[in-house]
Amino acid sequence: MSRFLSPEAARLAPYTPGEQPQDQPYIKLNTNESPFLPSPQVVEALSREEVEKLYLYSDPTCAHLVGALARRYKLQPENVLPANGSDEVLAFAFRAFCGQGRPVAYPDITYSFYRSQAALFGLDARMIPLREDFTLHVEDYLDFPGTIVIANPNAPTGIAVPRSHIQHLLEADPDRVVIVDEAYVDFGAESCVPLIPRYDNLLVTQTMSKSRSLAGGRVGYALGSGELIAALNRVKYSFNPYNVNRLSILAGAAAVEDDEYFQACTAAIRETRTRTVAALETLGFSALPSSANFVFARHGRLSGRELYETLKENGILVRWFDADRIRDFIRITIGSRAQMAALVEQLTHLLEV
Amino acid sequence: MSRFLSPEAARLAPYTPGEQPQDQPYIKLNTNESPFLPSPQVVEALSREEVEKLYLYSDPTCAHLVGALARRYKLQPENVLPANGSDEVLAFAFRAFCGQGRPVAYPDITYSFYRSQAALFGLDARMIPLREDFTLHVEDYLDFPGTIVIANPNAPTGIAVPRSHIQHLLEADPDRVVIVDEAYVDFGAESCVPLIPRYDNLLVTQTMSKSRSLAGGRVGYALGSGELIAALNRVKYSFNPYNVNRLSILAGAAAVEDDEYFQACTAAIRETRTRTVAALETLGFSALPSSANFVFARHGRLSGRELYETLKENGILVRWFDADRIRDFIRITIGSRAQMAALVEQLTHLLEV
Repeated sequence: MSRFLSPEAARLAPYTPGEQPQDQPYIKLNTNESPFLPSPQVVEALSREEVEKLYLYSDPTCAHLVGALARRYKLQPENVLPANGSDEVLAFAFRAFCGQGRPVAYPDITYSFYRSQAALFGLDARMIPLREDFTLHVEDYLDFPGTIVIANPNAPTGIAVPRSHIQHLLEADPDRVVIVDEAYVDFGAESCVPLIPRYDNLLVTQTMSKSRSLAGGRVGYALGSGELIAALNRVKYSFNPYNVNRLSILAGAAAVEDDEYFQACTAAIRETRTRTVAALETLGFSALPSSANFVFARHGRLSGRELYETLKENGILVRWFDADRIRDFIRITIGSRAQMAALVEQLTHLLEV
Repeated sequence: MSRFLSPEAARLAPYTPGEQPQDQPYIKLNTNESPFLPSPQVVEALSREEVEKLYLYSDPTCAHLVGALARRYKLQPENVLPANGSDEVLAFAFRAFCGQGRPVAYPDITYSFYRSQAALFGLDARMIPLREDFTLHVEDYLDFPGTIVIANPNAPTGIAVPRSHIQHLLEADPDRVVIVDEAYVDFGAESCVPLIPRYDNLLVTQTMSKSRSLAGGRVGYALGSGELIAALNRVKYSFNPYNVNRLSILAGAAAVEDDEYFQACTAAIRETRTRTVAALETLGFSALPSSANFVFARHGRLSGRELYETLKENGILVRWFDADRIRDFIRITIGSRAQMAALVEQLTHLLEV
């Protein structure tokens, strides 16, 4: 370890992103991107004239994007904070609401980045095990004296929690912040956004990386009470006031405004998911019930590692986590129908050998 | 203060960015943007085809941009870390090198964001006063037992420190990290980049917001030893692995590769600065010797606040800091020749009244 590292930096637990090959012709089913291009309105919004304006700073308040999001979600601008991807939103929230005497809890099996961010801020973090069938029961969190983070639907399982269960958590302790990470909510789970006007302790985070085809634009946002959003802004203005660039502000607003395209893309993914799960089950896989744009599945005969490695050799990237309880699974992004057909064909070939 | 705030968030000292009016027709000389459009190569690089690729994540290693920067500065890729503006680079550095038992020092008059970031990480921060004439003497830092941050040239004064002085600091304690914030270096100061191969405790941060006309693209970067860059990456992968979006990676690389445009723009700013300072002095201003794309000047008769407010009423934005020692000054960005002529005309009118 470097002699220059602070003790806090020495204790970090950096996240390992999914492979992002820049040149090879993989079928990429490993990072839950959309298989669809961004909305044509996004392409139109990023005009030559706007590119030329890059010599000017972006608006630190992101008013244009905040307005579009507020209209879309029937909230006020004070209820919205955009950021450089929802990872940044989550980091702001971990700092704003957790710390000394303010522990954080999340499931043992969930988005592993929560662990990295808890380490970044030196938090007392408790991992609460999902049940045997990978479902989350909010009763397991009722007595927890700190901030709770729930990905809904969860990753990498894809399993959703009903909104009424989250509501139960919010009511059980009005002084406790509940962060609901809705990165994948648009593919079939119940969003908690309608609860925001009623619970000032609810923070919802969402991203445009999945359902809005803007992974490369880095646009995430928090929705919550004015009080929680003001707290996030304290952190933002201490960390990076101009955190969203000009083009991402424009792209994000254009994406949010094209609801028709959004509905068509998410409906297509849901339909392809149904077909894919059926095909996988025919091949002997069992998949957890997914409300996301991925499925988490295992096979009786081949290990998760074998599946991952063999698929990669054959040009298909999926995600495999070398972690307790989920080592047998692979996480497969729902891509286009053609991509999923190629996957099923490859798996059929593989399992016949 | 909100009941939801962590004690750490309650102690924050959020930064106040310069005004960024989105619609009004101000002559904007308040945030040190370039008056020139981005390089034509930037505009070309952000093609429709690249915008359409926004559905895919950006490369978390930013290899394309890292390669362009490494070639430009005659370093290896392992010596380069791009980020979402140099504010983010600085935040990573504050976390990587400062903490428990690792205090940080910077001048009393400098980029006020250092204070925000020190508060963000709960650092023991010592502000070391600049001398009476606002110059920085490295002897004042020799015995400091922690990380040192020096903006060179300094902001908002514009005064530069010779490279040999920084070298003296680096040698005085090889176990101490010295961060040289070179946001404005391209306008006339000596860069410390040539020292990087010889001093593993030197971290240089730069930005494309000023000399490369990309303020709205949010591209900053750190240059330093492989050891220091690896430490920054630990923080980056704990905070936001995909911290630079696809288009900013492309824009940054294109900007760095167009050296001819860069030389022309920075030369024009230096020439306009010389003319502007002469005109200001004729009007009774005294300006600190600037190596940056701004001048820090005061007038015998009008206070800093009066100058700022009156100029704003007349459509010209400059920056005024309501802070000890510098309350009499205004910071004026060097814009285009036409913008500076308008400023001088306005001031002439103002001072004749």
